[in-house]
Amino acid sequence: MPAAMREGGRLVVVGGVAAGMSAASRARRLRPDVEIVVLERGRDVSYGACSLPYYIAGVIPSRDDLIVHDADFFRRERAIDVRLGTEAMAIDARAKTVACRDAQGVTESLSFDSLVIATGARPVKPPLPGIEMPGVFVVRSLVDGDAIVEFVERGGVKQATVLGAGYIGLEMAEALLARGIGVTVLELLPTVLPTYDPDMSGVVEKELLSKGVRVRKETRVEGFEPASGARSVGFVLAGGQRLGTDMVIVAAGVRPRVDLASSAGILLGGTGAIKVDARQVTSEPFILAAGDCSEAVHIVTGKPVWIPLGTTANKQGKIAGENAIGGSARFAGVAGTNVTKILDLEAAQTGLTERGAEAAGLRADSVRITGSSRAHSYPGAGPLHVKLIFERTDGRLLGGQIVGREGAAKRIDTVATALSARMSVADLAGIDMSYAPPFSPVWDPVLIAAAQAVKKITY
Amino acid sequence: MPAAMREGGRLVVVGGVAAGMSAASRARRLRPDVEIVVLERGRDVSYGACSLPYYIAGVIPSRDDLIVHDADFFRRERAIDVRLGTEAMAIDARAKTVACRDAQGVTESLSFDSLVIATGARPVKPPLPGIEMPGVFVVRSLVDGDAIVEFVERGGVKQATVLGAGYIGLEMAEALLARGIGVTVLELLPTVLPTYDPDMSGVVEKELLSKGVRVRKETRVEGFEPASGARSVGFVLAGGQRLGTDMVIVAAGVRPRVDLASSAGILLGGTGAIKVDARQVTSEPFILAAGDCSEAVHIVTGKPVWIPLGTTANKQGKIAGENAIGGSARFAGVAGTNVTKILDLEAAQTGLTERGAEAAGLRADSVRITGSSRAHSYPGAGPLHVKLIFERTDGRLLGGQIVGREGAAKRIDTVATALSARMSVADLAGIDMSYAPPFSPVWDPVLIAAAQAVKKITY
Repeated sequence: MPAAMREGGRLVVVGGVAAGMSAASRARRLRPDVEIVVLERGRDVSYGACSLPYYIAGVIPSRDDLIVHDADFFRRERAIDVRLGTEAMAIDARAKTVACRDAQGVTESLSFDSLVIATGARPVKPPLPGIEMPGVFVVRSLVDGDAIVEFVERGGVKQATVLGAGYIGLEMAEALLARGIGVTVLELLPTVLPTYDPDMSGVVEKELLSKGVRVRKETRVEGFEPASGARSVGFVLAGGQRLGTDMVIVAAGVRPRVDLASSAGILLGGTGAIKVDARQVTSEPFILAAGDCSEAVHIVTGKPVWIPLGTTANKQGKIAGENAIGGSARFAGVAGTNVTKILDLEAAQTGLTERGAEAAGLRADSVRITGSSRAHSYPGAGPLHVKLIFERTDGRLLGGQIVGREGAAKRIDTVATALSARMSVADLAGIDMSYAPPFSPVWDPVLIAAAQAVKKITY
Repeated sequence: MPAAMREGGRLVVVGGVAAGMSAASRARRLRPDVEIVVLERGRDVSYGACSLPYYIAGVIPSRDDLIVHDADFFRRERAIDVRLGTEAMAIDARAKTVACRDAQGVTESLSFDSLVIATGARPVKPPLPGIEMPGVFVVRSLVDGDAIVEFVERGGVKQATVLGAGYIGLEMAEALLARGIGVTVLELLPTVLPTYDPDMSGVVEKELLSKGVRVRKETRVEGFEPASGARSVGFVLAGGQRLGTDMVIVAAGVRPRVDLASSAGILLGGTGAIKVDARQVTSEPFILAAGDCSEAVHIVTGKPVWIPLGTTANKQGKIAGENAIGGSARFAGVAGTNVTKILDLEAAQTGLTERGAEAAGLRADSVRITGSSRAHSYPGAGPLHVKLIFERTDGRLLGGQIVGREGAAKRIDTVATALSARMSVADLAGIDMSYAPPFSPVWDPVLIAAAQAVKKITY
């Protein structure tokens, strides 16, 4: 771990989105005197990538709304030397230098006292024939979003095909539907939202179908080709079926962007992301990593995982920034808590799924109940499906999933808090939760699920 | 504590609303063979008293919607001998009998193996001259609600005056406003919602004023009298000012209904409510108490408190029912978690207020931040005010209050869960909470408040 940085020392941060700008800002707040340089290969910093589907949908009207602060803000207000269009080419950990190249192709070797790698993740673009065709898009950066909006607004897109039914694929399906475009989602696996257990993702699939989204599961695309007839992009399915569409969104997941780190000899973990300790320090003592390029410890299993999420990136970035100038902050770990709006549903999860718990060698059991989002008599009440996963003999809570028309998103945080506290389902069943008819039944669905779980424990 | 009840033994439950029917139902589920008698002085059982303001507002259209199950349901489906209009007159703890009188005035002495007292609370009706006048109402039972609806629907009510700015008073103000009635709220104390700290209740007061509710604080009513002029009810303020209104709602709080218990020699606690242990057993080993008539242990202070809430009544009732037939369930205690919808605001709290913490002799500090209910770019985002109270030197979380247009209600449960786990503000700041633009900013307001609190700890 870096010692307290010398006066006027230099911190270099590679990557200027969530983790990178959090690190730079945190370091600046603690140390007004040090030099802070951010190298960002793209043309934007500090944008809300998670808001891209809503920008594409037109729900968020302006691109500018996605940018929390622009590069000028960081230069002016935080004295951070943000260099856009500048790529970090190589790190020399021993010499403490990073070679970079700016937009004009000018290269430079920057020395550093400490370095934070926040290179994020890249979208998986399977090496399929024709994947570089016009009309085939990925969704990761603001620039990707710009290209999609431009393509859609040019007109003529009546049908779109989304490859991948993870949450980004489904958010994109919703975004295109909002644009009046018919959407087909293709998924390799037998369920949509594969990070959920099938009994919960099934509720989401029904919602998609009921709103007119076509869903084809266990379907593999083998390549793209110019389309025949009215459509502009053709694609070929495994088995040989040839279909046409007007645009394709490839939402086949992301991978950590680790080339820079691994070329510098920095160790990767078993997940393929950069191995870090709780202080975000890599195998090189003056080099830290944070965000979607790095691992984190899962609070339930205690093992390193790679779950790229904006919340984690911001938290890890803050910690990396503090420690890069000599602090000793520790990251509490992740539960993989996430929530997605899918048409008129909220789907939220935290901790392990039932399958995940089994894969981790835990003796897991689960309950699934359907409660109500409000008092049964209060207008607007809707069903809320709650699943809890717990250790079979001691009742320790392992995870939860909540799906419903309203009230899933922030209810999952209660389960996440219980996971952090290593509560049992009996502990959870005893929590004094809030109640008023507009917000929940007198027995909150989470309490009902926990009480059901208690009955299943086989002491 | 009662031993396992003999086969065919008899459980008598006094009171048939939340705690009483929960106790009876739980006992029945565990013991199909025992006799269960519920004595209910009113004409309804198992109704949602918390929904009364919404019924009065017309938001919940029918009285029947408030009744979860009627007496016939309990008789038929759960073989519970529900006796409506039947008052328990006296308990003989030694003889194990309870004297009761039915609606026809017929008295009977019922023997019991165990007894659950669930007599609830009564509304405070200050002994003011004229308080029994027509047009002056309390709001506690379904019958009270019926009377108010009937009075309002008769027509001619243009102005109403609510005595008391606690949550019931404010919910009633909203209900009457929804009926097109002008509302003035009078409060003895210097703030509305006196269970909140003033900096948070101030947000609620602004909302009331902005929607046209008149609020007069530090105002005492000394009596009622026939009105002069167009108004039908007159009232006199301390100082002698005479005012008129069309109806008065007395929402001056509630007190535990303990006459039956105290006459039987059952000990009351310092709060005035029935003293119980964690198993809901009173000072008499075969007599239990649950709900608004009984105390509970506060999970933060560890001391007995009296915080009458429907959630607590249901939970305590379930535990009392289980233990009345020989079980050994324990109540986890209360944090006083509650939430209220006040016009377009949600106000939620849990644990101790700043003043409450000081009163409990704790060295408390607090933070108050204003975050956003959604990502800043997502339409519909509104301010969310979060206050956290914590121990000054070790950072232990003591309580929280959240007020905002949306997202306060279920977010408070996260704070309540953290209280149950005896977390510090640093623990809370590390929780992996959910994020998606429609539901929260990437830094949830609760996390922002916790991180601010961490900075204030003076180790």
